[in-house]
Amino acid sequence: MPTPDEQIFPHATGFAASTVELHQAPQDLTFYAGWFCPFVQRSWICLEEKGIPYQYKEVNPYKKEKEFLALNPKGLVPALEYQGRALYESLIICEFLDDAYPDHKPSMLPEDPYQKAYARIWIDFIGKSVLPNFMRLMQAQTEDKRDEARKELHAAMQTFAAEAKGPYFLGEQFSLVDAAIVPWILRDYILHDHRGYHVRRSVRNGSGMRSRLRSGRAWSRRKAWVITIALMLNVANFFCSTQDADKYEEIYGRYLRDEAQSEAAKAIRAGKPIP
Amino acid sequence: MPTPDEQIFPHATGFAASTVELHQAPQDLTFYAGWFCPFVQRSWICLEEKGIPYQYKEVNPYKKEKEFLALNPKGLVPALEYQGRALYESLIICEFLDDAYPDHKPSMLPEDPYQKAYARIWIDFIGKSVLPNFMRLMQAQTEDKRDEARKELHAAMQTFAAEAKGPYFLGEQFSLVDAAIVPWILRDYILHDHRGYHVRRSVRNGSGMRSRLRSGRAWSRRKAWVITIALMLNVANFFCSTQDADKYEEIYGRYLRDEAQSEAAKAIRAGKPIP
Repeated sequence: MPTPDEQIFPHATGFAASTVELHQAPQDLTFYAGWFCPFVQRSWICLEEKGIPYQYKEVNPYKKEKEFLALNPKGLVPALEYQGRALYESLIICEFLDDAYPDHKPSMLPEDPYQKAYARIWIDFIGKSVLPNFMRLMQAQTEDKRDEARKELHAAMQTFAAEAKGPYFLGEQFSLVDAAIVPWILRDYILHDHRGYHVRRSVRNGSGMRSRLRSGRAWSRRKAWVITIALMLNVANFFCSTQDADKYEEIYGRYLRDEAQSEAAKAIRAGKPIP
Repeated sequence: MPTPDEQIFPHATGFAASTVELHQAPQDLTFYAGWFCPFVQRSWICLEEKGIPYQYKEVNPYKKEKEFLALNPKGLVPALEYQGRALYESLIICEFLDDAYPDHKPSMLPEDPYQKAYARIWIDFIGKSVLPNFMRLMQAQTEDKRDEARKELHAAMQTFAAEAKGPYFLGEQFSLVDAAIVPWILRDYILHDHRGYHVRRSVRNGSGMRSRLRSGRAWSRRKAWVITIALMLNVANFFCSTQDADKYEEIYGRYLRDEAQSEAAKAIRAGKPIP
């Protein structure tokens, strides 16, 4: 018997549907995607930002078709096929696009070794402190668990936003740090509507960060980043991968009832790392 | 009152003590380390492999001295100070060493974009599937939990070893994939002595991997990797960061009784990502 997750809406909608339409022709690079998946969106944003030619293929990662498992044994999206060879993991794909397409600017990471490592520290922070708490808050079924996740997500977002230079996280240039977090910022209305929390609120006023607030510099940085988030929500390259809201509702309803059967949802439920 | 973890033995011993002795002079790069820490050892191995000049400074990460927290707000080792600027996270440090010291060969990641991404996929696998299960098995206090962690670690190590090309994971060249896993392989006698599990056993005979075993190629790959592990245990650059066994015993006793207060131990206990 199929699990409910298998019966997801089968294709992209809204702005994303037009983007998919433009990427039907075969290319050196095939992008295996699930229209709803925030991890997919990270790589999709990089592909669009860099203007790399790619063919979009919709995959239902809940079905785990044999053909797709041969490509990615984890059965997860996003995945790439590049000149006949497979790659997966959203952030590894993004770094690969920089390495394999050096002429397609902008680079998603700074050239300077120190700045590059600094960017990686904050990408790592998103993966370890922002996403798991975002998902935990979404899946939490008791008030205690919601409170705990809300507090931790709030603290993580404050730390992150206080470090942002504005208008983008690293300054003038959009980077992989932004691409790594944007898909969840685009989805933060779900937490707002169902869990009484808005990512943007943590960015705006920080009760737990009084010492930083005393510094005008930290405050204006945070303000700059608030503006950035607003900008992001209006920039074509983000819009090009966003979907009709009602389609998201169906997907995230399963998360909010803690019924989702994605590998990420199962990991969060079991207290394990997101695979 | 100090927690027991604060009272750890204060400095490196054995071969590692001689290495520390050789790295007392100030350099552009200061390496903040805890002699016992496997994450430190990853970066230490890369520093030694690449022959980068560094000054070694011992830190007690359980004490979280103000001076060190200013450098790394997470208060974790390893950390670097490079020309007055701070960096942390073991794998980010390793990649930084490649970027900041391009003339110090060997490079820890392949030049070819696809091979580099492929290496990153397996480094990611170590962080998500090997380490958490290694720590979970160490910290598990009931037979049920031990069985579960043992099974998952066994499966992860089999998958990993079946993919290894030998003599090193990527083939002829030692890489960051090896450096990322070696510190735990060096410590696998702890699981053997206290949890009835040897990483090397998973690598040698795979009950759950019959289809792969049928292929002579997969088998010889795994065999090659077994030889590599044996080699690793005898290579100066690994030895140069290994300590007296009795000093490890004290540290790991706390993990085996699930009393350790490291951030990693607390995360595993709470079912959260290792920070």
